[in-house]
Amino acid sequence: MSSSTNTDKKDNSAALVERLSAGDIRAVARAISKVEDLSNDAAELMKQIFPLTGRGLVVGITGAPGAGKSSLVDKLALLYRKQGERVGIVAVDPSSPFSGGAILGDRIRMQQLGLDRDVFIRSMATRGNLGGLARATVDAVSILDAAGYDKIIIETVGVGQDEVEIVKAADISVVVLVPGMGDDIQAIKAGIMEIGDVFVINKADREGVNSTEKELEALLSLAMREDSWNPPIVKTVATESRGIEELAIAIEGYRTFVGQAKFGNARRQAVARWRIVELLRERLVAQTLESDSASEMLDRLAGEVASRQRDPYSAVEEILRGGQ
Amino acid sequence: MSSSTNTDKKDNSAALVERLSAGDIRAVARAISKVEDLSNDAAELMKQIFPLTGRGLVVGITGAPGAGKSSLVDKLALLYRKQGERVGIVAVDPSSPFSGGAILGDRIRMQQLGLDRDVFIRSMATRGNLGGLARATVDAVSILDAAGYDKIIIETVGVGQDEVEIVKAADISVVVLVPGMGDDIQAIKAGIMEIGDVFVINKADREGVNSTEKELEALLSLAMREDSWNPPIVKTVATESRGIEELAIAIEGYRTFVGQAKFGNARRQAVARWRIVELLRERLVAQTLESDSASEMLDRLAGEVASRQRDPYSAVEEILRGGQ
Repeated sequence: MSSSTNTDKKDNSAALVERLSAGDIRAVARAISKVEDLSNDAAELMKQIFPLTGRGLVVGITGAPGAGKSSLVDKLALLYRKQGERVGIVAVDPSSPFSGGAILGDRIRMQQLGLDRDVFIRSMATRGNLGGLARATVDAVSILDAAGYDKIIIETVGVGQDEVEIVKAADISVVVLVPGMGDDIQAIKAGIMEIGDVFVINKADREGVNSTEKELEALLSLAMREDSWNPPIVKTVATESRGIEELAIAIEGYRTFVGQAKFGNARRQAVARWRIVELLRERLVAQTLESDSASEMLDRLAGEVASRQRDPYSAVEEILRGGQ
Repeated sequence: MSSSTNTDKKDNSAALVERLSAGDIRAVARAISKVEDLSNDAAELMKQIFPLTGRGLVVGITGAPGAGKSSLVDKLALLYRKQGERVGIVAVDPSSPFSGGAILGDRIRMQQLGLDRDVFIRSMATRGNLGGLARATVDAVSILDAAGYDKIIIETVGVGQDEVEIVKAADISVVVLVPGMGDDIQAIKAGIMEIGDVFVINKADREGVNSTEKELEALLSLAMREDSWNPPIVKTVATESRGIEELAIAIEGYRTFVGQAKFGNARRQAVARWRIVELLRERLVAQTLESDSASEMLDRLAGEVASRQRDPYSAVEEILRGGQ
């Protein structure tokens, strides 16, 4: 690559960053597409974006399918708007059997918000074999942060590894439950302790809300958090906008707590490490497979593995030898 | 690495493969640990395992938390045992907030099975930053296949990208739902069509089973499958062992269908490609970060990114330069 091309990239990225930080929505959308595709100038763009980040509050909201996360996100965003804040929403769609359709539904429900120029909504979809959904999502959050959105809400449907990492990368993680989960509350205990900074029992007009709250309290009392934070439990009926202010207060409460504490750096260091390794992984695979000959080799090897003439390990060894 | 070490590896792997294919349970467990850790001799081991695979039937079972997947797996395994078949069960624990505890609970419930020497149960846990859970799971399935298990059941809790890939890699994918999902059935429609070869409505003694069945039928009638298979819907009450035989019959029905069809190769090719790329990804990152100096560099860069002195993209560029 010639240095003039690099200079062009720098100039192009600088123009895009200038536009997005001035609030140009199309520039925000274009920047997110660039990191989503991991296009050639994504690296230069993110280098210029990064110093502008760290101002917005990033709220990760997760929970099982059917917990009403999207109504909750919807209403929380409306509340923030009433406070005069700009809101970015990034919905993660891992193309899983349990989430694909939800995102479509969400986006329809969000039309009210979508007409508001100070609310930016984006769905992040899986990129197939290449991976990188979690990395692209966290990059999109950085872009919204740089673009001056005061609150950035990440909504994840589904509960796989990637989704957990995404939620951990937020400043604050909200876990949404519903009453009457019965056995399920046992089923969710192990990991839930460490990930939830605030818990929501949504659909709190349903039967069983008190027993769910008690079970959750009991589980939380056993939790070993690295900080001394006691995660609050907020009861909401999102469809009726009930409990949303309490949720916003709980979120601010944790923000204040973290602002005063010294432990925050370990979490930031872990997130940074994860971001680097994810991006490294993606880059290395892309580098190795980008040439036409590598791509042909992969097709041939996949055929040989499919017909059991060859095992995946020796196929990878052949690619690694060919790539050198 | 000297050639004598390579010869040793071959001999050691050959001995292990001989033991596991003779039905030695400890050899199976040891082989799975090797692929889980991606230890030095994992590649040699898998090269020798691979030609022995392709005999067992691999059944992937997935569904939202609380759908009763583990009772279903339990009862299906008991049925297969009554037919005189050896059963391997691989439970995937993505260490998510919604699954962690479930696996522990499952394993307690499976004690009855666990005492049976012809049932092998293994939980696969996340390997943290290094990734590779999906790859390790599919390798473990290959090992069980080579060890002569007739049925290998993969149970995944959670519905992230990795889990979907794991289920796609099975010979047959079973999606478990429960009645009264209401809005949820909309929430699951997009991806579910392509992934489920058989659908189960578990807890079918609950109210709403008929409307759930009708909604599911309506959704399936819209599905665009590459083959002409009509996924059957089986109603079960796993805790009372009801509907389990019907499920086993539906599974065999799909196996027969696939055996007669010609489209199977496209699926096998896609799975093979995915296995190669996953393993390649893991190998490349491990190679790049394995030295002490690379590990120190990663720690330093993570600190710089955490304190916003540096962005993740330029951190990765520094690692890529340093690694050459």
